[in-house]
Amino acid sequence: MAKCEAEDPLLERTIDSSHQSPHNNALKRRNYRRCKSVPSEDIYHPGQHNVPTPQHPESIFANKLDFKLVLLFLTAYLAIGSLCFFLVRNQIKGKKTNGILDAVYFCIVTMTTVGYGDLVPDSIMAKSLACVFVFIGMALVGFLLSKAADNIVEKQEVFFVKAMHMSEKCSDVEILREVETKRVKYKFITVLVSLVMLIFIGTIFLYQLEGLDLFDAFYCVCATITTLGYGDKSFSTSGGRLFAAFWILISTICLGQFFYSLAELYTERRRESTVKWVLTRKLTVSDLEAADFDNDNVVSAAEFIVYKLKEMGKISEEDIATVMEGFKKLDVDQSGTLTKADLVNSEASDT
Amino acid sequence: MAKCEAEDPLLERTIDSSHQSPHNNALKRRNYRRCKSVPSEDIYHPGQHNVPTPQHPESIFANKLDFKLVLLFLTAYLAIGSLCFFLVRNQIKGKKTNGILDAVYFCIVTMTTVGYGDLVPDSIMAKSLACVFVFIGMALVGFLLSKAADNIVEKQEVFFVKAMHMSEKCSDVEILREVETKRVKYKFITVLVSLVMLIFIGTIFLYQLEGLDLFDAFYCVCATITTLGYGDKSFSTSGGRLFAAFWILISTICLGQFFYSLAELYTERRRESTVKWVLTRKLTVSDLEAADFDNDNVVSAAEFIVYKLKEMGKISEEDIATVMEGFKKLDVDQSGTLTKADLVNSEASDT
Repeated sequence: MAKCEAEDPLLERTIDSSHQSPHNNALKRRNYRRCKSVPSEDIYHPGQHNVPTPQHPESIFANKLDFKLVLLFLTAYLAIGSLCFFLVRNQIKGKKTNGILDAVYFCIVTMTTVGYGDLVPDSIMAKSLACVFVFIGMALVGFLLSKAADNIVEKQEVFFVKAMHMSEKCSDVEILREVETKRVKYKFITVLVSLVMLIFIGTIFLYQLEGLDLFDAFYCVCATITTLGYGDKSFSTSGGRLFAAFWILISTICLGQFFYSLAELYTERRRESTVKWVLTRKLTVSDLEAADFDNDNVVSAAEFIVYKLKEMGKISEEDIATVMEGFKKLDVDQSGTLTKADLVNSEASDT
Repeated sequence: MAKCEAEDPLLERTIDSSHQSPHNNALKRRNYRRCKSVPSEDIYHPGQHNVPTPQHPESIFANKLDFKLVLLFLTAYLAIGSLCFFLVRNQIKGKKTNGILDAVYFCIVTMTTVGYGDLVPDSIMAKSLACVFVFIGMALVGFLLSKAADNIVEKQEVFFVKAMHMSEKCSDVEILREVETKRVKYKFITVLVSLVMLIFIGTIFLYQLEGLDLFDAFYCVCATITTLGYGDKSFSTSGGRLFAAFWILISTICLGQFFYSLAELYTERRRESTVKWVLTRKLTVSDLEAADFDNDNVVSAAEFIVYKLKEMGKISEEDIATVMEGFKKLDVDQSGTLTKADLVNSEASDT
């Protein structure tokens, strides 16, 4: 490989930004976001070359679709579940209030696996329904946790970061950058604040409207959001059950999200320490030899990236092998590199 | 970059193996497992170059340690929890059997958030203890799910694959390879089989020893493993509670693992479809230009790998930027490539 005189735009940019103060870290990282080699839509000219859209069709709207899909599932689940339990309301024993409210409340208590036991199914039909709905409910809550929750948390994050940096008068762009670089941390803070608020609201509600004493109200909140639901304390008024239907769903998911976010924070810390170790450990001659993918006695930037990302565990031998199979097919003249000539030859052999 | 005449050992190996039958896929993939550029211990000569061990210290025993740590936490949790609930046994109301058994049973029912309500705390002290233990228990179950369960499932997998391929007389090596290539699928099957067995055992036990009719036994099993725990049916004999202590812990975790494994299977399928799309879509001239990291008008194997893995979403611009910062620091002569001269210069400037 001929040594190119640092004409790589990425390299230059790295040099430029390395003299900035540590406070500009967010800005610095942002600089790389759209470097030359990212498959960007600006680079592709679909009309010209008649190529398909360069993004995987499934992934374009995946997140947006997933979110809407989850909401659709949730609505359908609650509607069908409540209707079913309303129809078998005479086969459910326990403290009753309003028929429809009880059905919705029972549906949510079952779905979130709180299962107080203040209402229990009392026939084979009702028990079977409860079994079916608890399994589907569990899957749905998991789906909600993985898809919808992230989506909602993301929007809240920006709000919280704005509130936290109120005195510093940051611009919206700066805030979005800050959120992006410390995503995991801010996600955790957002979920934590939401959880504390939900616990507070639940406790006050049970204290004021259900007439529990303050400690019992807090105890009932803890037993509910963890889905423990002993059932010695629960929502017994029709107003309480209406509130419970919304509050239980949101707060159980929020606690799940809290534990998930905690695990993410831990993983991120650990990943950062691995990355740091891989990047700061001394490079040896044997490393150079191992990283030299095409045996030309120099390590190019791309070779270094592949070597280090593999060492970090970001990519595996298997990933590389899979891509290399594609490379080999494209490299028609077997030169070890891809050129425009390879593309022309490849097209010729296709037709 | 000078075109090298296909002397890359990886390329050659790819060509060799591409003519094998599809049945040798496992074998084929295996071939790449230890290709030249993997940071392998054979390549490093610690004594010679005085380099540190090339694996991140935290990651070497991480999995083994994690597993032991989880078991240690679990034992400590159950011991302390049972002791606490045994000491406040007079402040817990409900159907009692043996004092110690009830304490262990109550501890497990609380930890897994089943919360039947057949035993409920009846004092501020007991309620506070339940609140503390349910939160720690939830975290511990999550930890068990993410660490220990994988470890156990892995061992079971080999056993199941052996059983499934009994008639084909595969060797142990072949079975290990089969497990490795279809890890996600076999993990799912293993968890599913375990779950069915646990449901069966639980139902039979409740039917035989707790005197429930067959349907109620199954209903109680469903209400338990989902941690719903209405409490209308639960374990009421001392023998039942002893069995329940083990069975509840294992089966609730198994169901959690089942949902997790299902999600993994879905993600894997989707990932495979993305990978396939990225590798089969037609490469255009603009792709070549975008992939050409060092602007030398040819795309090397490493450049192609970086470009495609980024397109697959395996690596991000940020990963590349981070590694490039390290590259820039090492590239003392700013030639755009790393050579032995750079290493010598870098050491000279360090001292």
